[in-house]
Amino acid sequence: MNILLTSAGRRTYLVDYFKEALKMAGQGGLVHAANSEASPAFYNADRQVVTPLIYDRGYIPFLLDYCGKWQIDLLIPLFDIDLPVLSANSEAFARQGTVVVTAKPEAIEVCNDKWKTYQTLKGRGIRTPESWLSAEDAVRAVEAGEASYPLVLKPRWGMGSLSVYEADNEEEVRVLEKKIRKEIQESYLKYEAARDCAACVILQQKITGREWGVDVANDLKGDFRTAVAKVKSNMRAGETDGAMTVEEPRLEELGRELSGILRHKGNLDVDVLESGGEYYVLEMNARFGGGYPFSHAAGLNLPYALVMWASGREPEKEFLQARTGVRGQKDIRILVY
Amino acid sequence: MNILLTSAGRRTYLVDYFKEALKMAGQGGLVHAANSEASPAFYNADRQVVTPLIYDRGYIPFLLDYCGKWQIDLLIPLFDIDLPVLSANSEAFARQGTVVVTAKPEAIEVCNDKWKTYQTLKGRGIRTPESWLSAEDAVRAVEAGEASYPLVLKPRWGMGSLSVYEADNEEEVRVLEKKIRKEIQESYLKYEAARDCAACVILQQKITGREWGVDVANDLKGDFRTAVAKVKSNMRAGETDGAMTVEEPRLEELGRELSGILRHKGNLDVDVLESGGEYYVLEMNARFGGGYPFSHAAGLNLPYALVMWASGREPEKEFLQARTGVRGQKDIRILVY
Repeated sequence: MNILLTSAGRRTYLVDYFKEALKMAGQGGLVHAANSEASPAFYNADRQVVTPLIYDRGYIPFLLDYCGKWQIDLLIPLFDIDLPVLSANSEAFARQGTVVVTAKPEAIEVCNDKWKTYQTLKGRGIRTPESWLSAEDAVRAVEAGEASYPLVLKPRWGMGSLSVYEADNEEEVRVLEKKIRKEIQESYLKYEAARDCAACVILQQKITGREWGVDVANDLKGDFRTAVAKVKSNMRAGETDGAMTVEEPRLEELGRELSGILRHKGNLDVDVLESGGEYYVLEMNARFGGGYPFSHAAGLNLPYALVMWASGREPEKEFLQARTGVRGQKDIRILVY
Repeated sequence: MNILLTSAGRRTYLVDYFKEALKMAGQGGLVHAANSEASPAFYNADRQVVTPLIYDRGYIPFLLDYCGKWQIDLLIPLFDIDLPVLSANSEAFARQGTVVVTAKPEAIEVCNDKWKTYQTLKGRGIRTPESWLSAEDAVRAVEAGEASYPLVLKPRWGMGSLSVYEADNEEEVRVLEKKIRKEIQESYLKYEAARDCAACVILQQKITGREWGVDVANDLKGDFRTAVAKVKSNMRAGETDGAMTVEEPRLEELGRELSGILRHKGNLDVDVLESGGEYYVLEMNARFGGGYPFSHAAGLNLPYALVMWASGREPEKEFLQARTGVRGQKDIRILVY
């Protein structure tokens, strides 16, 4: 069985997890990495391939050709920009035997478009921060007593901590809203924002409280298998640097519900804020996220489960469970070329 | 010989370098780590000690007591907030045989106060971005044609990417200047900013160009020993994620000059921007910085040199040199407790 990870970046550990998964499943085959530039995970794979840029017209034909030639069974996208592009072409990949491990295009749009995230969650009665698509609406909500400063402003189609600001008053809301709009046009975020330039900034009620992450594991049919809740101990530039697995039935239940809504394949990475004893879903991504290694360290082995499912077998039950109370932290390792 | 690193955080590699340095020098002894909270480097040390917070009155008495009891020879601070506090007490440490490896208080102030950095460099004829201490002055400079947008605004006493913003016009300058002032008061940056609250935000001409880092190694007398220049390949949240050593005599000469000005002990981490063929010094820190491991990977072994100097010996010449063309990248490693 052959596996291709795209945009693995510094997630060398994921390459290792998949190499190990093949061994554990008694499978031959290689772990490939596709990236547009040199990165540690890229060099750690069994084989590397430099692809055209994701927005290039040649990207999909190139990958289809590559996956066909190398008989790739599982194509695992790891970058938010990559998800909709690969998902939209998942049938072409399927025809040649390659499963794209993420959600369907509609579900990815729910994740990538923060306004759709908000609407979808609200529609299901799931708590999420109040959100607005214009400075006017947000300021009016504060004046009406329905919201309060600080508000968080960010690109509606955005990721990580790119162009994320906090506003403490109306003046900041207005100036920062304009500023983000400008920054979007100057970055690669402009591609997705082009769908609706007038409403490409989202304003949200800031919620202060403990940060949680949930990994929601579905099988290759999109059926729920498990959810692992972690409390985050430290963050850096929007990424989880430390976390501990915790038994939290309400978050596991929430994970099951989100799984049913999105019907993704593989992992769904969910960011949650806790405030006043309530959980607010902040963001969802239908891929392995920066918090996955902490679930993995606690016993969840989704790469192994994916390999087993792809070979028509069922993984042993213990690999779809995580022990609670396992604390992990990210450390720096230097690789030299 | 015993060594204590304070605030090592995720720099587990530095703990390893010092452990190895003791071995290479044929020295017994332990590498200790002092931190106020759990971190990977902390657990990687031979011994750990949880200290009072840096601004606590008990911090220095606690460390003096600890260093005396464990016969610490080298005390290596790794956090900007820690440098002035330990430096100011370096004589008390010296009396019990502990060398604080950084610069004298006046030199640390030149590094930590970005306005003093600017004045000092200008006074020596070293290029650095034009800077102002008020929105008025910066806006006036743009109107007079002496500067142009974007400007970078940041806390005068600040670090990393905390409260760093770019302004593209006068409105943004004014709103962001107020905003940073507010953010300083809400963070631990307020302690140093208390020296001059009215002028705690610095505005600088943004310079676009290649980013370089220079490690300037001095011995324990503060004499220059070597300078290693690196071009940075990727950055994340103000930290160098990838770099390559390059032979660049002008930067080595600049390093020698800065060494003569600051007379620090150990490492000086220098951030440089290149624009139009000229080098602009952006920031200096009299400690091992996030770019040091790339110099180390290329052959510079300052931890070993420090151990040798502290034991009255001279390191072999090759450990104060770095090969050029060595490319390194930071990768993520997961540690579990």
